Amino acid sequence: MMPRWEPGAVGRLQAAAFELFAEQGFERTTVAEIAQRAGLTKRTFFNHFADKREVLFNPVSDMQREIVTREIVACPDELSPLDAVVHGLLVAADTMFEERHTAVVRRQEIIEATPELQERELRKRAALTEAIADALRPRCADSDTAVLTARAGLLVHQTAMQRWTRTTENRPLRDFLAEALLDLRGVTAQTTDQPVVSPQIT
Amino acid sequence: MMPRWEPGAVGRLQAAAFELFAEQGFERTTVAEIAQRAGLTKRTFFNHFADKREVLFNPVSDMQREIVTREIVACPDELSPLDAVVHGLLVAADTMFEERHTAVVRRQEIIEATPELQERELRKRAALTEAIADALRPRCADSDTAVLTARAGLLVHQTAMQRWTRTTENRPLRDFLAEALLDLRGVTAQTTDQPVVSPQIT
Repeated sequence: MMPRWEPGAVGRLQAAAFELFAEQGFERTTVAEIAQRAGLTKRTFFNHFADKREVLFNPVSDMQREIVTREIVACPDELSPLDAVVHGLLVAADTMFEERHTAVVRRQEIIEATPELQERELRKRAALTEAIADALRPRCADSDTAVLTARAGLLVHQTAMQRWTRTTENRPLRDFLAEALLDLRGVTAQTTDQPVVSPQIT
Repeated sequence: MMPRWEPGAVGRLQAAAFELFAEQGFERTTVAEIAQRAGLTKRTFFNHFADKREVLFNPVSDMQREIVTREIVACPDELSPLDAVVHGLLVAADTMFEERHTAVVRRQEIIEATPELQERELRKRAALTEAIADALRPRCADSDTAVLTARAGLLVHQTAMQRWTRTTENRPLRDFLAEALLDLRGVTAQTTDQPVVSPQIT
């Protein structure tokens, strides 16, 4: 059966959920309460979200994955694979996150306070990494390199998002992404001529 | 009350758990069954492990954290912070993992087949990252750089462990760590003169 269409149901459910999570915490909030606050039924909730946790992740993570992978595929070949990933992240930042600083910060606070949400967040991040690695494969020498590049890109993303959600400066997320990429390049640059020599354990 | 000392209880419980997980899966195995197979009581199990999941993680993750952070602190200043992390990981590899390839592979298979174990693994990895960042702070310009370096180190670790547990070649884990570090340096090296230029979304 087709789910009945409810105008703006997703947005109303998410707004209601955010309010309730802030008022009484994630764990104490039930799906019934979220639906009631949004003026909808539990059934409508479950037409849109698999569980209470998903209200914080959908449709953001799907959209982000689509934008980032589409942009990687469309990127000119001259860009290095890692630059292509960061380009995709920049477009997603401008399209999805830039205008929603307050909502992103509040969402981050709720997630950080709740272990089961952190776990879901980690799983979403792993899924994004896999999708990026798939999109990178034609640009990389082998599959291992594509996976490593995707992970390096996620590291840039995670670093930039954390700095952007914690700052009081009014700078766009894209600046933090560009800066995190520079910082990662600084951190991985070989600063000494010596290779790593570790004593063998005997 | 002091827990009663059981000779080799941890090792016996872990061996029993591994056997049962392989035979009937993680989810279908109970703590009572693990204790029985090991010839011990449930109570002894809970003296050593907080829950069924921990039998796959303790004491390995605590030991690894101690070795890696101790080695970072003791590292000569000439090594770059990232090289210091990889040095710590090399020592842990030689001490803890090198001789246990089969057990590490089997453990990895069990974790990959069970979402709740993957979540625990991700949380352990986050805890290791934090401990490494703390150990790196005196070597880094600021706390943000220490965190980013720790994450880059974990990326090297994760990449090397995956390759080592999937390979049929008989090469030591330390080779995979050195190689993953080189690969990360290759992936992050700027290959074009152009900075990333992304079209502004208008």
